[in-house]
Amino acid sequence: MHNPQLNRHGELTHLLSTEGLPKDILTHILDTAQTFVPLAEREVKKVPLLRGKSVFNLFFENSTRTRTTFEIAAKRLSADVFNLNINASSTSKGESLLDTISNLTAMQADIFVVRHEASGAPYLIAQHVEPHIHVVNAGDGRHAHPTQGLLDMYTIRHFKKDFSNLTVAIVGDILHSRVARSDIHALTTLGAAEIRAIAPLTLLPGGLEQMGVRVFTNMEQGLKDVDVIIMLRLQNERMKGALLPSSQEYFKHYGLTREKLAYAKPDAIVMHPGPMNRGVEIDSAVADGDQAVILNQVNFGIAVRMAVMSIVAGASQ
Amino acid sequence: MHNPQLNRHGELTHLLSTEGLPKDILTHILDTAQTFVPLAEREVKKVPLLRGKSVFNLFFENSTRTRTTFEIAAKRLSADVFNLNINASSTSKGESLLDTISNLTAMQADIFVVRHEASGAPYLIAQHVEPHIHVVNAGDGRHAHPTQGLLDMYTIRHFKKDFSNLTVAIVGDILHSRVARSDIHALTTLGAAEIRAIAPLTLLPGGLEQMGVRVFTNMEQGLKDVDVIIMLRLQNERMKGALLPSSQEYFKHYGLTREKLAYAKPDAIVMHPGPMNRGVEIDSAVADGDQAVILNQVNFGIAVRMAVMSIVAGASQ
Amino acid sequence: MHNPQLNRHGELTHLLSTEGLPKDILTHILDTAQTFVPLAEREVKKVPLLRGKSVFNLFFENSTRTRTTFEIAAKRLSADVFNLNINASSTSKGESLLDTISNLTAMQADIFVVRHEASGAPYLIAQHVEPHIHVVNAGDGRHAHPTQGLLDMYTIRHFKKDFSNLTVAIVGDILHSRVARSDIHALTTLGAAEIRAIAPLTLLPGGLEQMGVRVFTNMEQGLKDVDVIIMLRLQNERMKGALLPSSQEYFKHYGLTREKLAYAKPDAIVMHPGPMNRGVEIDSAVADGDQAVILNQVNFGIAVRMAVMSIVAGASQ
Repeated sequence: MHNPQLNRHGELTHLLSTEGLPKDILTHILDTAQTFVPLAEREVKKVPLLRGKSVFNLFFENSTRTRTTFEIAAKRLSADVFNLNINASSTSKGESLLDTISNLTAMQADIFVVRHEASGAPYLIAQHVEPHIHVVNAGDGRHAHPTQGLLDMYTIRHFKKDFSNLTVAIVGDILHSRVARSDIHALTTLGAAEIRAIAPLTLLPGGLEQMGVRVFTNMEQGLKDVDVIIMLRLQNERMKGALLPSSQEYFKHYGLTREKLAYAKPDAIVMHPGPMNRGVEIDSAVADGDQAVILNQVNFGIAVRMAVMSIVAGASQ
Repeated sequence: MHNPQLNRHGELTHLLSTEGLPKDILTHILDTAQTFVPLAEREVKKVPLLRGKSVFNLFFENSTRTRTTFEIAAKRLSADVFNLNINASSTSKGESLLDTISNLTAMQADIFVVRHEASGAPYLIAQHVEPHIHVVNAGDGRHAHPTQGLLDMYTIRHFKKDFSNLTVAIVGDILHSRVARSDIHALTTLGAAEIRAIAPLTLLPGGLEQMGVRVFTNMEQGLKDVDVIIMLRLQNERMKGALLPSSQEYFKHYGLTREKLAYAKPDAIVMHPGPMNRGVEIDSAVADGDQAVILNQVNFGIAVRMAVMSIVAGASQ
Repeated sequence: MHNPQLNRHGELTHLLSTEGLPKDILTHILDTAQTFVPLAEREVKKVPLLRGKSVFNLFFENSTRTRTTFEIAAKRLSADVFNLNINASSTSKGESLLDTISNLTAMQADIFVVRHEASGAPYLIAQHVEPHIHVVNAGDGRHAHPTQGLLDMYTIRHFKKDFSNLTVAIVGDILHSRVARSDIHALTTLGAAEIRAIAPLTLLPGGLEQMGVRVFTNMEQGLKDVDVIIMLRLQNERMKGALLPSSQEYFKHYGLTREKLAYAKPDAIVMHPGPMNRGVEIDSAVADGDQAVILNQVNFGIAVRMAVMSIVAGASQ
């Protein structure tokens, strides 16, 4: 089956998922991002790569934080950025998603950055748009959040250099996490030695073993000698249903404290996609500690999004 | 009476309505827009005509789509754009419309793009502002939506070249449509041979005949041999009152299907201001068919709004 | 105690309050603003002082007007501006203020413009950020609104040249006004001869006399021979509690009419921070009269905010 993210020359024309992307594409994105990281230190933090291009942030689901990172990345590339809160707009008037996309395309969009509560919405859009238009998935349902996955890979590579010897543990609400999915696919492609999932049974999806992931319900065992710990955010609403007893109980068993962190390798790094629930999935002593690289993730995230947008804009279908 | 849209030299200084604009001004706008259309094909889709100028999008009524088209047009002209959702702001604090305008003027605005639920609000603002400031009406109540009217004229001229032999039918909720009013005035001034209105009696305003419009309540008769069909959006809320029985009933009689389209000339074009209600006023087979030029309208709309803003900014009162 | 607004060289690195700022810093801001005022008359109203820098408007409390003035000022300085309505964002997800700030810092912010309903929030942020980042207070609780205070000083200096002979009356809801506080501190530092507060007892805070302010509850006595009148906005919600009988009653006693204005010097100027409640704290005949300089304040406000942002961005901690 044709990979909808690549053009006929095998170049990245949309970023929809880390799943199915070849290793050389992932590495090319990380290498390109690396060239943008030093920009942050310069007086004028801009490059003219997307000058005169139009980037539309189509957020069907509100996320100021993610929207802002893409807006910063696009402006650093000198693009014109248009933020559309689509909920408040045409969909409430009964227009279909594809009519909305056709209209914005007719306004001469170059890149659509799409956040949608429905898994697969960015695929639908990518299938629909003309060849010169590019779609970047900024999170679709529980499916994928590929730029978060890529910035996680960038962060790991930055601190650990090589994936081939690494044991990486993903901890928390894996069942509902598009970040976990994107991380697992990218880690697998990049050749991580071992990927672990640690969570209570109620927050573990099926099929992890088939993806090559080792599953743990106990932090002591799961964190044993790992190099990288990726903590996931626990949505407060999970507490309300039958999935979890209480946030205190969760913290006791799965919250990352210094004591639990001590099971990992001494030089293990601690990551979190944000926003953090301090005292729920992570203790402040860890979040603010020496091993946390959480703010590095945010910083690298700008460079990774610049890389993705400049790479897809250079491709054609 | 002095035309409030023109300065003493007869130049366009505000765009408030297509009503009362002389033919040479309309033609000048369309000609100017034509110079901007090829920009969309260029790598850098910008011209520096409004560099350093400030365009304020004052939307007292929410419309992401229209606001975005003006924002794109202004940024393509290199202006700085400021989006103000005024409902959420000072008017809720009891400040008068004119005090709000005076304040924004003191912030050195150059162009106000105004959308307001009250007919005439852009006129009030235009009367009030200083001579170097320009007002563009982006839709006021049921009164006028002149840039939509102008982009409709651009689209017709693009596909049909000359107005003098054309029969144009406007179909649907004419009673509540500012688009219909703006189209009728512009078509009249540009010399369209015949203008028709087709709608159920409950959606027809009085006074159409006095404007030179032929009125039909039957699609077969109304569409007979027309060159251009302008479909209007049917607001869902019309169904709730006593004006219409149901959307199925409406579609049966007034929805544009292939069968009804066959009454028109074989090369007739089908237009719609968007957003479309597929299956209510228009069938998907027509909306996506060869005769539909709906997305061309959107594309030309950017160029027309660039033309309007660059023309008024070049005038002084 | 170390002044948190100044770096070790005594340069302004954050603007948090007019309180505690030395006279030469206040004068430097006003002098710098004066160089930006003529920009408004130029074709291209921009200077490249903050090109490539990122200004984040962090509005934890909605204020379209103030946010817009900062956005204009930042864009005139050629900065990239990011508007974040933080209520709708991470704080609703339970993230702490300082985590939000850390994240935005990691996105390589240069200046945070902060509006917050809690007094002191901008101080907390300023203590927390890295040395190369600058915080500008755009209004915190009842505490301070220093750029409003500074634009008031600019306006007074523009019309009255020298502070040393001036009697300035501040009239209205002083109890709840961060503007009044910022004005009193700045006027004191700049050497105004006499500062008066005029209000009903229920709207007078304690401690004014200790700040050197003469307190009046009667307009005739309080306005006698003043050079400058600063009217404050009366929040409508004050009427609902026990603080005031009715807006008619308030207008009768404290509303600035031509008759009451006649108590002041003939060349007294009338100021108001906006938005005005005409017929409550000020009569339209005065608001629109020759002595009103209310729109000048708005105009100067852009230049003052440009001055503040360009000055802090030039300092380091």
